[in-house]
Amino acid sequence: MKLVLIRHGESEWNRKNLFTGWTDVDLTKNGMEESKLAGLLLKEGEYDFDICYTSYLKRAIHTLNGILEQLDREWLPVFKSWKLNERHYGMLQGLNKAETALKYGEEQVKTWRRSFDVRPPALNVEDERNPRFQEQYRNERNERIPLCESLKDTIDRVVPYFDQVIKKDMEKGERVLIVAHGNSIRALVKHFENLSEKDIIEVNIPTGVPLVYEFDDAFYFVQKEYLGDLELIKLKMQKVANQGKVTETK
Amino acid sequence: MKLVLIRHGESEWNRKNLFTGWTDVDLTKNGMEESKLAGLLLKEGEYDFDICYTSYLKRAIHTLNGILEQLDREWLPVFKSWKLNERHYGMLQGLNKAETALKYGEEQVKTWRRSFDVRPPALNVEDERNPRFQEQYRNERNERIPLCESLKDTIDRVVPYFDQVIKKDMEKGERVLIVAHGNSIRALVKHFENLSEKDIIEVNIPTGVPLVYEFDDAFYFVQKEYLGDLELIKLKMQKVANQGKVTETK
Repeated sequence: MKLVLIRHGESEWNRKNLFTGWTDVDLTKNGMEESKLAGLLLKEGEYDFDICYTSYLKRAIHTLNGILEQLDREWLPVFKSWKLNERHYGMLQGLNKAETALKYGEEQVKTWRRSFDVRPPALNVEDERNPRFQEQYRNERNERIPLCESLKDTIDRVVPYFDQVIKKDMEKGERVLIVAHGNSIRALVKHFENLSEKDIIEVNIPTGVPLVYEFDDAFYFVQKEYLGDLELIKLKMQKVANQGKVTETK
Repeated sequence: MKLVLIRHGESEWNRKNLFTGWTDVDLTKNGMEESKLAGLLLKEGEYDFDICYTSYLKRAIHTLNGILEQLDREWLPVFKSWKLNERHYGMLQGLNKAETALKYGEEQVKTWRRSFDVRPPALNVEDERNPRFQEQYRNERNERIPLCESLKDTIDRVVPYFDQVIKKDMEKGERVLIVAHGNSIRALVKHFENLSEKDIIEVNIPTGVPLVYEFDDAFYFVQKEYLGDLELIKLKMQKVANQGKVTETK
C-alpha cells in the first residue's frame, strides 16, 4: 500500500522569508515550475492515483493542479480540507523570519518553528486574519478553528483527518496523493514512522518533491523514498532548515 | 433558488471548427480569458457558491478553475462527472464542421448537430477513442459509456444526474455553479424550461457567459438571465449557430 505526499512549491512568502501559516499566498513562477517537475517525476515513475487530497490554501491547490496537468489526471476527484492546512502561525504570520530571529533571538524562533508543543503568540480575536472572519472557514464556525498552533496542535487535527478519512480510501484500495504543507506533512511523517517529539523537529520536508510511503497490510510503515535527484533534494531540505537563521537576511 | 450554468470558453478545436465531443482538448488563450471574464461578471454581480460541478473534460475544468480564481473560491468543493460531458459526437470527432457540411451537405450536418434523436455515426468498438480504452472512464466500465450520442442520449444521462445529485444539493440550500458544455447545458435548459424537441434545437449557448436560472420552492422555472454585455452575448450565440455552415471555411 503506497501513499504519495508532496509539499507545495515555493510561495510568494517563502521567497520573502515570511511566516505564512494560514495566509493564502500564491505560488511563485518557480513554485509553479516545481509543481510541474513533481508531476513529471510521478509520470516517469509511472505513478497513478484514484483520489487526491489537499488543503484550503491556493499554494497547495495550484501545486496539485500543476501535478494533475502533467499526469493528464485533471478529472480525478480532489477533496480539500482545512485539516491539511499549514500550521497556524498566529501573530508571526507576515513577519520576516530572519527579522523575528533578530528581535526574539534565533533560539526563540527555532523554538516556535521547531518545538513540539510551544504555540506562537495567538492572533487577537478581533484580528481580520481570525479565520472566523474569513470566507474559507465559514462552514466550520462550530469547529475549533485555531488562532495559533503548536506542531502538536497541527498533528491533533491532521492525524484524525488522515485516520478517519484518507486511510479509509487507502484501505479500499484507492491510490492516494496528498498535496499539503511543511507541518501538515510533518504531522503525517511523525504518525507513520512513530517518531519522537524530538526527532520530528529535525525533519525537513523539501518543496515539490514526491515522498512515497509504503505500508504493509496492517498499515505499518515499511519504507519511504523521495523521487528525483538526491542532491537537489538535500539542498532543498537545507534551505528549509536555514529559514529561521539570522544570516539569511544578508 | 438560483443556479448558475456556464459553457466552457473557446477550445483549441472550437477555434479550428472541428467536432470535439469527448475529445479532451484544452482551452485557447482566448478561452482562458473568457473564463476570467466570467469570474469577474459573477464577482461584480456578487454571486457566491457553496459547491461546483463540472465534467471530466479539461476545457470545462480549466474554465471552472479560472472562474474560481477570480472569485477567490478555489477552496470550494468541486465534483467532476462524465455525466456532464459534451454530447459524444462519435465518428465526427476531429472532423472539420464546414468540410463535413461540404461532404454530407449542410442539412445533414445540421441534422446531426441539431436534431433531437438522430445519432452521428458511432465510433468503431476498436477505435482508440472508444472511452473504454481511456483512463478517464476506467471506473465506469460497467456503465453505458456511449460510442456516439443524439441530443436525446445526452439528455438521458445529464438530467438524471442533475435530478439525483445536483438538485439534492440545491434543495439543501447549497448555491451551485455548473461549468459544462453546449449540449449538456442544453439538456438542462430543456429540462428546466420544459422546451419541446423542436425548440431546444434552436437554443444556442454562448461560451463563457454566466446563465442564471431562478426556480421557485417547488423547483419550477421562474426566470433566467445572462450576465454581461447583451450585444456580445448575441454575437457569441450567432457564432455557435453558424459553426455548421459551409461558408465558414472561406
